[in-house]
Amino acid sequence: MSGMRPTGRLHLGHLVGALSQWVEFSKTDETFFEVADLHALTTAFEHSDVIAASVRENVLDWIAAGVDPERSTIYVQSHVPEISELHLLLSMVVPVSWLQRVPTFKDQIVALGGDIATYGFLGYPLMQLCDIAIVRADTVPVGKDQLAHLEFGREVVRRFNSLYGPTLVEPQGTLSEFPDVPGTDGRKMSKSLGNTIDIADDDATTTKRVRSMITDPLKVRRNDPGRPEICPVFALHNIVNVPRVPAFEAECRTGALGCVYCKRAGAAALAHFMQPVRERRASLDPAAVDTILAEGAAKARIVAAATLADVKAAMRLP
Amino acid sequence: MSGMRPTGRLHLGHLVGALSQWVEFSKTDETFFEVADLHALTTAFEHSDVIAASVRENVLDWIAAGVDPERSTIYVQSHVPEISELHLLLSMVVPVSWLQRVPTFKDQIVALGGDIATYGFLGYPLMQLCDIAIVRADTVPVGKDQLAHLEFGREVVRRFNSLYGPTLVEPQGTLSEFPDVPGTDGRKMSKSLGNTIDIADDDATTTKRVRSMITDPLKVRRNDPGRPEICPVFALHNIVNVPRVPAFEAECRTGALGCVYCKRAGAAALAHFMQPVRERRASLDPAAVDTILAEGAAKARIVAAATLADVKAAMRLP
Repeated sequence: MSGMRPTGRLHLGHLVGALSQWVEFSKTDETFFEVADLHALTTAFEHSDVIAASVRENVLDWIAAGVDPERSTIYVQSHVPEISELHLLLSMVVPVSWLQRVPTFKDQIVALGGDIATYGFLGYPLMQLCDIAIVRADTVPVGKDQLAHLEFGREVVRRFNSLYGPTLVEPQGTLSEFPDVPGTDGRKMSKSLGNTIDIADDDATTTKRVRSMITDPLKVRRNDPGRPEICPVFALHNIVNVPRVPAFEAECRTGALGCVYCKRAGAAALAHFMQPVRERRASLDPAAVDTILAEGAAKARIVAAATLADVKAAMRLP
Repeated sequence: MSGMRPTGRLHLGHLVGALSQWVEFSKTDETFFEVADLHALTTAFEHSDVIAASVRENVLDWIAAGVDPERSTIYVQSHVPEISELHLLLSMVVPVSWLQRVPTFKDQIVALGGDIATYGFLGYPLMQLCDIAIVRADTVPVGKDQLAHLEFGREVVRRFNSLYGPTLVEPQGTLSEFPDVPGTDGRKMSKSLGNTIDIADDDATTTKRVRSMITDPLKVRRNDPGRPEICPVFALHNIVNVPRVPAFEAECRTGALGCVYCKRAGAAALAHFMQPVRERRASLDPAAVDTILAEGAAKARIVAAATLADVKAAMRLP
């Protein structure tokens, strides 16, 4: 089980990171992928318009990346009300102090300001656990920054099971760190930095984006030697042009390779890399996403209702 | 709208306090009465058996007290999942600090110990607001100790409406203080003190209970003058034997009235007072409560679903 918050367009970093992993998982396992709109509210409650606008586009990106709605269950978090019910029930056994010591809580308040310190935001890690537990997921991919959330969730499951008997599955994390994809300005690719190459971009747009990328500032003209390890265009080749990387690296270091040519080759390789993704995206009727999400929610709710019934019975609710 | 937590049997204090008021309200207004099982979990999560066991008995007590399931909507909180959904959605706009400064939060931690300081317990006043807001209640009876909760709830409604446009009804409180009903030991009648006269008790039991009541310790024998103002048996007369109170008061002060006779008269008056309550209770098939609760939940969910749809639309959820 995994999910993403619908807070804007998805980019190359998502494609070669989380999404490629989702596709791999779904080849061998039953998978649940969630559009985490309620999570998005925790930080975006004051400008929630972006959430609804992003849902359909993000799901198109997922499917374009190769996530197969026939093999995987794709749904919107708020369309599975059992998650909210489980959240309220589990909230009864979770000490406030456990949530307050999750490192992201204080970090994010520092990063985003005190307005974010809402009751909902404090409960974010519990909501993540509910997303996982409601579909009885046993495995979740986690980055290093999410390890504390997973550990918190496992602790809650153990506490619940020890209070009420074995009911919830204790999820295992599979640690997955993807190399950061540098954006056009060399910093980590990120929507908030405006340095992305988006999955939904067309050829002309990405070519222009690659052309605008920064390169090694010490390599001013063609014959100056370059340092590929600090160049985001080289990082792009590393992703989309793997077979030709050794040649590009050598020629950049000697200076034989000019940045203009290197970018043109990078843009062409990117276009080739993106071709199947773009074809899948173009072949999809955006309205079909609504059907996929409706079917996904219905499917997720079957297992969710069963989990919730188990939890209510374990807690001996009337 | 009002509710009670199903944490044990109801007693004379409930009958002449909240329940008599519910009956009055329901004569003129549309009323919703909730068995607050999720609220009960906030303090009873470690021994939740009592909750399910109390639900049916409490509803029998309500109906015995005169609450008419044909006029009022009676339902179990956890049977209306829209309350949990609303709770999660509103949690996004509620600063943690607002909840931390509700006086009952810190008071109860002192009273009940730190184990109670769960995320669910911290969110208690928000859950109360959701109970009220989901059925669009405009009026709630509140005791003085609940005024801070109501004020918190009104603040949340104002914040929500100012962020997303007018959506939720800002509930008004009607301050209702009932004289404390003294228990058999003279302290306030309370289940936890074991000094109650329960609505479900039969005649023989209440008569025995009245006979065991403490009286003025300075009035040792018949002709000693008594102090009615400190005597719980006199307080009982005040509730169930109003026309004869002046005579009993005068004769107690002179000493002419003996405690044994006074108790016997009190028990008889209580039996008379309880007669219609007991008759209604005896005429009810306990299994019929399940039907009443199922119909009540269905009825409450119609307005709850409409409120939730309004809230989701206002927040622009997908």
